[in-house]
Amino acid sequence: MSDPLDAFTGKSDTKFDAPGTARSVGWTAPEKVRLADERNPLPLDCGRTIAPVDVEYETYGRLNQKRDNAILILHALSGDAHAAGWLSDPDGLGRPWLKSRPGWWDNMIGPGKAFDTTKYFVICSNILGSCYGSTGPSSPDPETGRPYGLRFPVVTVGDWVRLQARLVDHLGIRRLFAVAGGSLGGQQALEWALAYPDRVESAIIIAATARLSDQGLAFNAVARQAITTDPCFNGGNYYGGATPDRGLAVARMLGHITYLSEISMRRKFGRRFCNGYGPGFQLGVEFEVEGYLRHQGEAFVERFDANSYLYITRAADYYDAAKWGDGDLDRACRRIQSKALLVSFSSDWLYPPAQMKELALAMGRGRKRVSYANISSSYGHDAFLLEVEKLAHLVRCFLEKR
Amino acid sequence: MSDPLDAFTGKSDTKFDAPGTARSVGWTAPEKVRLADERNPLPLDCGRTIAPVDVEYETYGRLNQKRDNAILILHALSGDAHAAGWLSDPDGLGRPWLKSRPGWWDNMIGPGKAFDTTKYFVICSNILGSCYGSTGPSSPDPETGRPYGLRFPVVTVGDWVRLQARLVDHLGIRRLFAVAGGSLGGQQALEWALAYPDRVESAIIIAATARLSDQGLAFNAVARQAITTDPCFNGGNYYGGATPDRGLAVARMLGHITYLSEISMRRKFGRRFCNGYGPGFQLGVEFEVEGYLRHQGEAFVERFDANSYLYITRAADYYDAAKWGDGDLDRACRRIQSKALLVSFSSDWLYPPAQMKELALAMGRGRKRVSYANISSSYGHDAFLLEVEKLAHLVRCFLEKR
Repeated sequence: MSDPLDAFTGKSDTKFDAPGTARSVGWTAPEKVRLADERNPLPLDCGRTIAPVDVEYETYGRLNQKRDNAILILHALSGDAHAAGWLSDPDGLGRPWLKSRPGWWDNMIGPGKAFDTTKYFVICSNILGSCYGSTGPSSPDPETGRPYGLRFPVVTVGDWVRLQARLVDHLGIRRLFAVAGGSLGGQQALEWALAYPDRVESAIIIAATARLSDQGLAFNAVARQAITTDPCFNGGNYYGGATPDRGLAVARMLGHITYLSEISMRRKFGRRFCNGYGPGFQLGVEFEVEGYLRHQGEAFVERFDANSYLYITRAADYYDAAKWGDGDLDRACRRIQSKALLVSFSSDWLYPPAQMKELALAMGRGRKRVSYANISSSYGHDAFLLEVEKLAHLVRCFLEKR
Repeated sequence: MSDPLDAFTGKSDTKFDAPGTARSVGWTAPEKVRLADERNPLPLDCGRTIAPVDVEYETYGRLNQKRDNAILILHALSGDAHAAGWLSDPDGLGRPWLKSRPGWWDNMIGPGKAFDTTKYFVICSNILGSCYGSTGPSSPDPETGRPYGLRFPVVTVGDWVRLQARLVDHLGIRRLFAVAGGSLGGQQALEWALAYPDRVESAIIIAATARLSDQGLAFNAVARQAITTDPCFNGGNYYGGATPDRGLAVARMLGHITYLSEISMRRKFGRRFCNGYGPGFQLGVEFEVEGYLRHQGEAFVERFDANSYLYITRAADYYDAAKWGDGDLDRACRRIQSKALLVSFSSDWLYPPAQMKELALAMGRGRKRVSYANISSSYGHDAFLLEVEKLAHLVRCFLEKR
């Protein structure tokens, strides 16, 4: 659920590859495709259908003749289709805040990188319900012509994956060489392995969980409460008027606490005062960590839709891989045909290693080909965007192992 | 910082002693005393002074002739002076929500209990800046005649303790047999040992810390952000009008997550749906844990003042025991003359055991008489109100050891 932009906005020291350089996929432009219309609406887990559905996606590398080298990358809460390279025309996307920037997993996708675009055809699409080009609550409701708002159906991880399958069909791909994602993207990778066992060769599930803990549910509930009680929320009908920025900023600030670890916060901020010396005896921002969170909140409201935040966190709440085994995770895992790489990070307390281990053991009991690694890291949940070297090594070995 | 009322409102299975029974201190009534006036204002760490200052307090048991059996109990964020027994006239206090209820530490204070009122004279006072009878942001500002609001000075743990020293003077007590508190009450106990080393015989510091972690600062910052961005907040001038309930409820919901542990939440809620079976595909309350938090938030706004929440969390932020050693905790601890009992709880992640251990080690290096226990508990930070048996045993042994 971490912010793909953070890595670029000073949160890490990671160096990025400029568009013209050897390890960059270069300039990119998202494509858009309509994958559901009135004659062929998308069925949803809630029992409703939705149409039209547009999907924004990017691809890197080339699909080979056998069409067996495609890797689908799945993004997290606030992510988008722009996973690698640099946007060639950010202004053309109609998102005023958007600047050309490297994709959110640029350090993992490119020539010679973990997801090597000289070998693989890499796809990343924006999820249903988001606000980055795919159909979501801010899209026009065909029944009214106005933005859906809360008339948008409650979507699930299963719905996202069902829509991604249509995209993969559209691209003429029967079987994916790999699906891969971190955080909520990891849940999607797992759902792919469960929902389409015969269409996935390998699944890479990072900093994710088979189901969110009650503590995770609780954080999401508080975030949504902050948004829906913002007076500007207006029952979700705020498009064209004042937006519920205060609530969304609070939600985002809270999210950021859960993406970092206690130790990474201590190293980053160390109780330092903004003024450099000590208490100013006032209630405003005093500590650097406060200033950081305030900034993250303010920056986020520029670029994200509050309704999308509600829908996507709700999908995260609902996700429970055990549904494929009528509540029994072991039984669910027996469906899996792909090999799997599971990666957790030692200081991730939002999606803790113990949960990933539980999933690995469930797969193991079903005699699935599963590799599990718990990477020692102080970065907390954000590690899936920051521990590039260790993660790249694991992914490369896993993909190349026959 | 946990809610003293929670233990009574179904959060624990603890049984309480009815007023007439042998182990109860019986019916209680708070007293009020003016401890600072224009001629003798209270000096504050911020450089200002404040007057008048009224303090609400309760006492249990009897002060002996030598006046050497007094124990001062310190309360946490949302606590009050009513630490034991049952309020005889709750209506008389002018707090409409108040019902007669056992004090927040009734299971620890009473005849034959850990703080044995047949032996000790037990005192508990409401802190400066709170909304439970002592002077705070909702009190009239003598300069304007209207409630202070944000004109109230930023107070510190040091200020609270300085005011408590005046109360102890007022009661004719030179030296306290013990000071004791949990959570933010533990910081006060520590501050007593540091600020008035010759007035404290023993200090009991529970589920507390010498200084809040950056993660703790971050949670407080988000809570305050939720309050101050509530449109009803109105710069703190909301008395007599609509109050910032939405923001305060969000702050409280967030607080509750930090008072529980991941495992206690799992045991308590286990991802159960309110409807008993599964997803209702809507954005409102779906999981029991959401309903619980929503209820906690709603109940809290009935009984707490948002401005007090701001001031008290700020005091928690600022507290750093190392200030007594110019930033060096070891040096600070050398001031201490009392013996000390330090208690942490294994699953407390708000005030983690490691921080308490750090304090214990600092005292140990100064060759202070310190006992440290880390109680194994799944209750998280709330354990200081719930792990009565283990805690009572430790406290009793400590107090009786000569």
